[in-house]
Amino acid sequence: MLANDRFLRACLGQKTDRTPLWLMRQAGRYLPEYNATRAKAGSFLGLAKNPAYATEVTLQPLDRYPLDAAILFSDILTIPDAMGLGLQFAAGEGPSFTHPLRTEEAVKNLRPADLHQLQYVFDAVAQIRKSLIQHGKQRVPLIGFSGSPWTLACYMIDGSGSDDFRHAKTMMFNRPDLLKHILDINVQSVAAYLTEQLRSGAQALMIFDTWGGLLPDGWYQEISLASMRKVIDQLPQELNGQKVPIIIFTKGGGLWLDDMAESGADVIGLDWTMSVAKARARLVEKNKSIALQGNLDPLALFANPEQIEAQAKKILDGLNKAPALKADLHPLDAHIFNLGHGISQFTNPDSVTVLAKTVIEYSEYLRKA
Amino acid sequence: MLANDRFLRACLGQKTDRTPLWLMRQAGRYLPEYNATRAKAGSFLGLAKNPAYATEVTLQPLDRYPLDAAILFSDILTIPDAMGLGLQFAAGEGPSFTHPLRTEEAVKNLRPADLHQLQYVFDAVAQIRKSLIQHGKQRVPLIGFSGSPWTLACYMIDGSGSDDFRHAKTMMFNRPDLLKHILDINVQSVAAYLTEQLRSGAQALMIFDTWGGLLPDGWYQEISLASMRKVIDQLPQELNGQKVPIIIFTKGGGLWLDDMAESGADVIGLDWTMSVAKARARLVEKNKSIALQGNLDPLALFANPEQIEAQAKKILDGLNKAPALKADLHPLDAHIFNLGHGISQFTNPDSVTVLAKTVIEYSEYLRKA
Repeated sequence: MLANDRFLRACLGQKTDRTPLWLMRQAGRYLPEYNATRAKAGSFLGLAKNPAYATEVTLQPLDRYPLDAAILFSDILTIPDAMGLGLQFAAGEGPSFTHPLRTEEAVKNLRPADLHQLQYVFDAVAQIRKSLIQHGKQRVPLIGFSGSPWTLACYMIDGSGSDDFRHAKTMMFNRPDLLKHILDINVQSVAAYLTEQLRSGAQALMIFDTWGGLLPDGWYQEISLASMRKVIDQLPQELNGQKVPIIIFTKGGGLWLDDMAESGADVIGLDWTMSVAKARARLVEKNKSIALQGNLDPLALFANPEQIEAQAKKILDGLNKAPALKADLHPLDAHIFNLGHGISQFTNPDSVTVLAKTVIEYSEYLRKA
Repeated sequence: MLANDRFLRACLGQKTDRTPLWLMRQAGRYLPEYNATRAKAGSFLGLAKNPAYATEVTLQPLDRYPLDAAILFSDILTIPDAMGLGLQFAAGEGPSFTHPLRTEEAVKNLRPADLHQLQYVFDAVAQIRKSLIQHGKQRVPLIGFSGSPWTLACYMIDGSGSDDFRHAKTMMFNRPDLLKHILDINVQSVAAYLTEQLRSGAQALMIFDTWGGLLPDGWYQEISLASMRKVIDQLPQELNGQKVPIIIFTKGGGLWLDDMAESGADVIGLDWTMSVAKARARLVEKNKSIALQGNLDPLALFANPEQIEAQAKKILDGLNKAPALKADLHPLDAHIFNLGHGISQFTNPDSVTVLAKTVIEYSEYLRKA
């Protein structure tokens, strides 16, 4: 029994009393309590691989802010790690793999992720789900997630973060057969991973396609979007008689809105370059019943409280003037407020308080006006 | 007298026998002869600030490849340098400023660039223009350029390259009055700088808006595009009775095509996320007579020759099926082939030979077919 089902209702295109809100990377380094837990865990991987710590940090932002969803604390690179690529986080640097896929032999030897090695993730999901219960009710729904097959391939081939993922894209142009082999394995692994998160207690799923926006038009559709669609096709449509909402988020994907609307997802996440109001108008024009999530620029949280309030209201005011997704809905329905990308580690935690208060009060006010 | 005016004709929406081609950053580190000149010059700034060396490297790619335009070798940060911000290139790192605009006082004290300090740029333009003469004719036209007012502001405020230009965007959200002050000064300086490049011999101008794509929808139009429009409004429309073509290029700007078409520019440069064919169709539908430039993914040059050829043909085939810009033109007219961003330093120079041959032969073949 959910005490707050606004997030799930908005994802499924149902009426809500106000706009639900959560933030990508809401459990993160901008919170002193997160840094304290991370210090206890000794390292990022020590934190992510320990279900008790993962549960602790997942709940921290919910205790501080009136958010409408929890999201599993984990890393998108757990899957390639469970494929044997050897994930490591060197101090002061980003993640990297000991065995990136740089040769034909390495690609041919790639095997799907061993789900047993990911048991710590499923244990975390189950433990978070239990810990969300308060006074006999679950406070908010729990979102599970994965990186997209293409985004995982970027890290698997280049071996670490990059601004152009040169090796992955060279393989795409030069040896599309090898990239296809990797994507097929990633599709299979991501689908199995997300399905197991659902079985363990996740109530919605999000696919993070962080690097889809690096692809040329045409390639995005064939490479990243098509493989996300294959994942979605393999996921259970329902769990215990409930439809499971699926969110896809391609950073820099605003140009491909029409294509994303055909992915089988229930919600499209937008970064801040594409207006939520324009996206809604376009989807309604094309008769696509799909909800939207986003899209305040994370750096808007670096402004003073008055400006944070103004920027959040601007998004809500814009959408309020756009058409409703369906005849029986308010224009603000079927929208989940979020940032357009993960919250910056340099954010003042008090800025999130201002944002939450604004979204909650103003989205309720506009619905009554 | 120009031996080859294809580039200018395509910019101005006139018929050409084949598609003209040049490459952003065509004089660069992927060329051994460039590296040799740079070694002689001692440093990047030593190269950029010496008109003889700048002329030498500008001409190098023309001697190696059948390109249809030369572009001034310089750096977009020359303007803030001439405002007194103190440009430096530390070994192995990107450019940075000794005096970034981090305080209200620093912003208020900012003065327009001293054009006398930029005389080395104008001297280079004049010298390149002269050196382009062969057998009494100018081989190809010379493009002058500047960073956009917003892109310059990004570096001026953050003080160096960044993946999010956190300080610039914080100022934008928090103190829009200070950012406006900087943009006004940048508009004035960019317009004066480009005008002086024209007087010195540039025959077309390009404004590089490398970081416009970081802006939220709405802000892009108000901040970056509006300031580019102000620059264009201040430029001479003609030089010696000839219309001077102006190209604007916002990386990640595909979503804002309709807005860019209102900038006063003659050509819109596209990165690889927006199909040239779709952009053409959209502009024709909206009755906007504006040429397009782009947009092969620079990393496609890392593929084998057959794949490079296939990717270049794909762009031409796509545009060939799109509507012509005007009734008397071929669909391939009013398009300048280029990359969607600067060529990578890791490119094999032979790959550019393959690309040039493909664009030249195939764009001529399609026009005759």
